[in-house]
Amino acid sequence: MAESWSFLDTFEPNFRPLVVIELAKGTKEETTEWFTKRIVDKKANGGAQLLIKPLVTENGDENIYLVGASPFRLLLGAETVGLVKECNDNSMRTFTYSSRKTFKDFADDNHNFLTMAECQYIIKHELENLRAKDEKIIPGYPQAKLYPGKSIVRRLLTSGILVQIFPLHDREELKKLRHSWYGRVKVGYQPLDEIRCYFGETIALYFGFLEYFTFALVPMAVIGIPYYVFAWEDYDKYVMFATFNLLWSTVILEVWKRICAIMTYRWGTLLMKRQFEEPRPGFHGVLGINPVTGREEPVYSSIKRQIRIYLVSLPFVCLCLYFSLYVMMIYFDLEQWALDYHAENESNFSSLMLFVPSIIYAIVIEIMNRIYRYAAEFLTSWENHRLESSYQNHLILKVLVFNFLNCFASLFYIAFVLFDMKLLRQSLATLLITSQILNQFAESLLPYWLQRRHKKRMKKRMGSLKTDTDLSLVEQVHLEKEMGTYFGTFDDYLELFLQFGYVSLFSCVYPLAAVFAVLNNITEIYSDALKMCRVYKRPFAEPTANIGVWQLAFETMSVISVVTNCILIGMSPQVNALFPDSKMDLILTVALVEHLLLAIKFIMAFVIPDKPRDIQIKLAKLEFESLEALKQQ
Amino acid sequence: MAESWSFLDTFEPNFRPLVVIELAKGTKEETTEWFTKRIVDKKANGGAQLLIKPLVTENGDENIYLVGASPFRLLLGAETVGLVKECNDNSMRTFTYSSRKTFKDFADDNHNFLTMAECQYIIKHELENLRAKDEKIIPGYPQAKLYPGKSIVRRLLTSGILVQIFPLHDREELKKLRHSWYGRVKVGYQPLDEIRCYFGETIALYFGFLEYFTFALVPMAVIGIPYYVFAWEDYDKYVMFATFNLLWSTVILEVWKRICAIMTYRWGTLLMKRQFEEPRPGFHGVLGINPVTGREEPVYSSIKRQIRIYLVSLPFVCLCLYFSLYVMMIYFDLEQWALDYHAENESNFSSLMLFVPSIIYAIVIEIMNRIYRYAAEFLTSWENHRLESSYQNHLILKVLVFNFLNCFASLFYIAFVLFDMKLLRQSLATLLITSQILNQFAESLLPYWLQRRHKKRMKKRMGSLKTDTDLSLVEQVHLEKEMGTYFGTFDDYLELFLQFGYVSLFSCVYPLAAVFAVLNNITEIYSDALKMCRVYKRPFAEPTANIGVWQLAFETMSVISVVTNCILIGMSPQVNALFPDSKMDLILTVALVEHLLLAIKFIMAFVIPDKPRDIQIKLAKLEFESLEALKQQ
Repeated sequence: MAESWSFLDTFEPNFRPLVVIELAKGTKEETTEWFTKRIVDKKANGGAQLLIKPLVTENGDENIYLVGASPFRLLLGAETVGLVKECNDNSMRTFTYSSRKTFKDFADDNHNFLTMAECQYIIKHELENLRAKDEKIIPGYPQAKLYPGKSIVRRLLTSGILVQIFPLHDREELKKLRHSWYGRVKVGYQPLDEIRCYFGETIALYFGFLEYFTFALVPMAVIGIPYYVFAWEDYDKYVMFATFNLLWSTVILEVWKRICAIMTYRWGTLLMKRQFEEPRPGFHGVLGINPVTGREEPVYSSIKRQIRIYLVSLPFVCLCLYFSLYVMMIYFDLEQWALDYHAENESNFSSLMLFVPSIIYAIVIEIMNRIYRYAAEFLTSWENHRLESSYQNHLILKVLVFNFLNCFASLFYIAFVLFDMKLLRQSLATLLITSQILNQFAESLLPYWLQRRHKKRMKKRMGSLKTDTDLSLVEQVHLEKEMGTYFGTFDDYLELFLQFGYVSLFSCVYPLAAVFAVLNNITEIYSDALKMCRVYKRPFAEPTANIGVWQLAFETMSVISVVTNCILIGMSPQVNALFPDSKMDLILTVALVEHLLLAIKFIMAFVIPDKPRDIQIKLAKLEFESLEALKQQ
Repeated sequence: MAESWSFLDTFEPNFRPLVVIELAKGTKEETTEWFTKRIVDKKANGGAQLLIKPLVTENGDENIYLVGASPFRLLLGAETVGLVKECNDNSMRTFTYSSRKTFKDFADDNHNFLTMAECQYIIKHELENLRAKDEKIIPGYPQAKLYPGKSIVRRLLTSGILVQIFPLHDREELKKLRHSWYGRVKVGYQPLDEIRCYFGETIALYFGFLEYFTFALVPMAVIGIPYYVFAWEDYDKYVMFATFNLLWSTVILEVWKRICAIMTYRWGTLLMKRQFEEPRPGFHGVLGINPVTGREEPVYSSIKRQIRIYLVSLPFVCLCLYFSLYVMMIYFDLEQWALDYHAENESNFSSLMLFVPSIIYAIVIEIMNRIYRYAAEFLTSWENHRLESSYQNHLILKVLVFNFLNCFASLFYIAFVLFDMKLLRQSLATLLITSQILNQFAESLLPYWLQRRHKKRMKKRMGSLKTDTDLSLVEQVHLEKEMGTYFGTFDDYLELFLQFGYVSLFSCVYPLAAVFAVLNNITEIYSDALKMCRVYKRPFAEPTANIGVWQLAFETMSVISVVTNCILIGMSPQVNALFPDSKMDLILTVALVEHLLLAIKFIMAFVIPDKPRDIQIKLAKLEFESLEALKQQ
């Protein structure tokens, strides 16, 4: 490959802007010059060999740059990041420049072989891998230290010289995508492949999961409706419903793995090799030698991190949990007060007042969740994890535990301490519906409205009211750079996770939960789609092969729901009537059934293969070929 | 590598026999000629390029051959099988002939760079990979069909022309090993690295696990003794003991993974790449195209196999389980009869009679286990699994389920149906001790005695009474070919698994079980060592990185033991006395504690990393290097 870089010497005449770099206003000229030179410089000199152009605006400030690359450079980059593409013989293979002719739809003049999202991912990867050579500081900023091998872009970001890097929208493509996604009223699947081409695999996988999960809830909803309508409270029917739910939730989580494997195989990410993980931008420490790479980089003692985790973060999380329980007890006081008030002066107003505590509590829960979220982010970042993945895992764990307790503690209390099934049903319904409404509002509609207002003001200022596709590049960049940033799928998955909790934990008490979840998810698909296409900046594509730690979180929830549902059934008067003589027999039976169900769950999870047979064969074939190739050497 | 094979043209003068091939008596000459020619033939002509010599005996029959290889050929073979060796810089790397100089202890004249076990493994691998080219049949045996790519050795074995292939013992090395292993009375660790050099990783790992497991049981035994001696039956002490046991068993299984990683890293097998699995010898089917390799080979429909598994094997196993339960009920009748007899005529004889049913039952259990084992092997082989690993998994599953029920059903019945703790303790002790004695006898002492008798007779026939090391090669081969074959570590692990069950399932009732287990295991180490060194043919080394499915089996057992122990504690009179008013509260408390313990177990298993930090770093370093190497290309 080394020689082929020399092809790039000739400057590309038709420059296609892909990524926007915004520097801070008043960045020193020597810094800008040095940075742009490094981006354009040859690979052999430690550059990224990309193309860069300043965005010339009317008011003449030159702090925005457009980055692009020649088609040939992008192909070499595709090899570097290890993209997997479909070959002419329909197998998926890691792309290499030398074998480019064997890939489907490849032609030297076909610039759509790589999707725009892939091109932008490649450019992002190349920019992030632009490393300091012998520079000790960023020119012009003596306080921004560098050391050999440090990612320049990350240092620029942490020292505030680089404001942001974001990929440009493709107005034409976006219009098409919007149309096929939510533009027309239709019943059918989302255009996941198109979403993946435009937004990348992580986001497409989220929408895939959202859609799959909604479909998977439909049977539970359909079976749940008659239970609610006819108030079937017969023991056997009830047990059947709960058992169905429990086994169903195992099956859907296992089947999702298979569907996920099919999708990510088609997208190539299932086969993509994991890249070596660099330290995350916020990581700091004293300079030392990384034992893995042997390179000089900041190191931070693992023991110090452990101390921070166990002596600060853990007690803080426990304190928050305690506070959340305290708020819950206040809620129950309020609830009692409302009941007393209703009993004293029975009126329409007082019966309406009955719902007020639940609604207030639901709002308080949402607010607490959001505040805690910031605290958790601060703490986890203070723990100073070296890798982004480790940071994410610790953050997710913190947030999950708190949100779980915050959302479900009151329900557990009502169910297993107060034994008040009527209140449980009412609380569950109020919490579920309120949180759904709040979420939809706070997450999509409010930002959408703000964005629209902002856009109108911007356009007015620019003195023209063109449609989106007619905007000039300068206007487009100025519009997009002010849009909000999409911070990843975390919140979206969290919302689904809590919803899954509402549906499964107490499913046998409130069968209608699944119905509400389905209805919410249908609108959620549209509002999330709107959010992605209209509200936020285009995010960089992130190749991924699965939904990661969320699979584990959902599986854990489904295990907990076996326990709660068994207890709920055991407490129901119908079941109690079956064991009139001995409470003991009842409890023993419930415990036995619970253990059986758990055993069945684990066996099912073990027996159902994670990948469909044909994907397994395709993977085995690739492995066999690579072994054979090694032998031939 | 292709050219380097030509070096092998010159015939090696100093032939060192490594592997023995025994053909059936009266094998046709054309077959022998063809087979030996294929073994000696050049790699380019599809041969194995090994050395072969007939063993010339006095009575002149030429059905035994010795196989060896030149040191250079062995090095090329080491590259083919992907051996991992230590480099000069103390890192572990996959051996390649071109990089041979970078490896520790490598010298062109050092023929001990590869251990004898590794050489024999390489020869076995090369022989098994000797494949038919255009032969349609084995010459001389028109009924033994071949097709392109079929392993010749496997066809020869299944058609009975090839009686056996086994590696030769190295009398000198064996004597040294015996001495350091069990030759002197000493307290200390086994020489695992030496065992690994002589017998290979699978067997060394078994002895490593046996030793580790014995050490791990010591704390349980030490804490258990005072409980037994002083008959502490206080609630709190009891619960502490049981809780300690449960958490301890989780810890030891997690720590074993780490120790295993350390050992197999040192041995190189942790890094060894999995080879492509060929169909197992017994697999048959109609000729078709393998979808993975694209080669012609027998294929067998997966649906047919599923039918055999679910419609024949599964019902058969269920029937056996039923039969085992039936035998158990007979045992309880016998037990009752013995009690009645003792009550009627109280005498020394009658009190001795009390133990007879348990002992008989223990013997019957052992016999049933062994018979069932044959049935399970027959059935699993009839299920016609393509891969040896799939065959092994199905066999292990069948055997485990049956043995578990067969051994523990009576104990469960006594504990949770009869609620007779005294009988439970007595049965547990009888079953444990009887099965240990039976096993030691049937597994090592009996074969050892038979082997000794046979050897004496052989030597007498040969007219000489030399010591082992003075035997001529001919005598050695004749002695060894009559020795029993070691069929792998299955039975040894199974024995440990059942022992773990006896120790952990009812540990809080019979704390002395751990003591017996420790005592048994100490003798077990010696009798197993004796068995390996004296009784059986030398087995081929098998590289392996972990104890495979047994890890899962032991973990499952430890989960089950949480449940049983919680119930046992809940049933104890001391705990019952704590809840005088309400049985319900008792059961609820027990259930809560059980769930808590299970949750702690799973969290512990999740939190304790499977590999120690330094191994993780070493692995990451290797991965990083290979990624860097790819980039450099």
